[in-house]
Amino acid sequence: MGSSRNLTLYVDLLSQPCRAVTIFCRVNEIEADVQIVSVLKKETREPPFLAINPLGQVPAIDDGGFTLSESHTIMRYLAATRKVADHWYPEDLEKRACVDRVLDWHFGNLRRDAAQFLEHRELAPLLGRTKNPTLAAEAEDSLKQSLKTMETVWLKDSPFLAGGSQPSIADISSACELQQLKLLDKEESGGLLAPYEKVKAWMVAVEEFTAPYFVDTHGVLEKLAKILEDRRKSEAEAEVETAPKL
Amino acid sequence: MGSSRNLTLYVDLLSQPCRAVTIFCRVNEIEADVQIVSVLKKETREPPFLAINPLGQVPAIDDGGFTLSESHTIMRYLAATRKVADHWYPEDLEKRACVDRVLDWHFGNLRRDAAQFLEHRELAPLLGRTKNPTLAAEAEDSLKQSLKTMETVWLKDSPFLAGGSQPSIADISSACELQQLKLLDKEESGGLLAPYEKVKAWMVAVEEFTAPYFVDTHGVLEKLAKILEDRRKSEAEAEVETAPKL
Repeated sequence: MGSSRNLTLYVDLLSQPCRAVTIFCRVNEIEADVQIVSVLKKETREPPFLAINPLGQVPAIDDGGFTLSESHTIMRYLAATRKVADHWYPEDLEKRACVDRVLDWHFGNLRRDAAQFLEHRELAPLLGRTKNPTLAAEAEDSLKQSLKTMETVWLKDSPFLAGGSQPSIADISSACELQQLKLLDKEESGGLLAPYEKVKAWMVAVEEFTAPYFVDTHGVLEKLAKILEDRRKSEAEAEVETAPKL
Repeated sequence: MGSSRNLTLYVDLLSQPCRAVTIFCRVNEIEADVQIVSVLKKETREPPFLAINPLGQVPAIDDGGFTLSESHTIMRYLAATRKVADHWYPEDLEKRACVDRVLDWHFGNLRRDAAQFLEHRELAPLLGRTKNPTLAAEAEDSLKQSLKTMETVWLKDSPFLAGGSQPSIADISSACELQQLKLLDKEESGGLLAPYEKVKAWMVAVEEFTAPYFVDTHGVLEKLAKILEDRRKSEAEAEVETAPKL
């Protein structure tokens, strides 16, 4: 189905659900006027944006006057109203239910765990908050459990999370969630994924299927990763400098 | 759409998503063989049930050999495959997106907050865990924020969460989440909802629209609330008995 409506997409590419919606639009050649709304600058809490989404969160869309938020909801809606290949959100009711199931699982597991782990291991100071090592450790345990579920349940007999030989919107959403782990020290992020061969192969498959948009949209994350790496290095050097001289 | 398939519904009515799916099936007269799978007895972790849902969670369904989990996904699927009034999950793409948005919001807000608050204020000892007052206080703050969102955004211009004059599956899901708060001391649960007039009217409207199934399905919760109330009373009496005599 096509649409002659004018679509505006409100995103901050530092947010993983925003990256997911952006990749989905680009890979499906969905025309949209992209407006950047900065979370860190609190633009999401200002009246012009609150008129689009009273919850003050990105991503959001305005589709010819119809406003909508929540990344999974936006992708479901665009899959139904734009010309989008069926595998992203199938018409067949059983196949569609398999996609919905993974999308819903994602909320209660991968999303919660990855966000809490990253915040308390790495990002809290950037957000003006304090790292809590206990919460980081708890989230790491849950995250490993989620990765195990992906490896042994969702990807057991299929290259993509909801079954079938082509990806769905659930793959884009979950891959964007895991890609954030690249903000960690390289050894740590590699170590986390190391035991999960199918998850690693799936990440590559999602990246290849959506090329070049997956890598391109994550450019901002690469820059942030570099800043964090430099910060870790200078902290380590400062520790060496202040160490007692023998 | 009707279905000649045999549906089996696996639930534990102590779980709020199970109560939501049960109410949805009963109010829509969806025929199902209901199988009770006890979470506390760890029946959800035993091989016969893991064959239905490898994640080991209820609710789950087996629809003529097609197995599915996640309460929102199950209700979406049954709305599409059974004879169900359109307002529960509308065919119209904009109306449907409004339901999806509230369902997705529910996951990241009401569900997380209500579960964490109840666990750390009341249920932890029953689950073999320890109450954490800090986590209870944090969850209470978030829960109040979610209630405020319901009052000022979702219910601002409509008696039901996703707009329109009749409820959707999002109303059943969120009402079951809030109904759990009745497990708390009556004064405390009443106090939590007191400032939110629209939320209170909405709870009554959902209960009336789904009568008698909402009240009936929550019978198990009433019993548990009575047990917890008796326990609070005997703890209070024990405190009086051991108080120093003047």
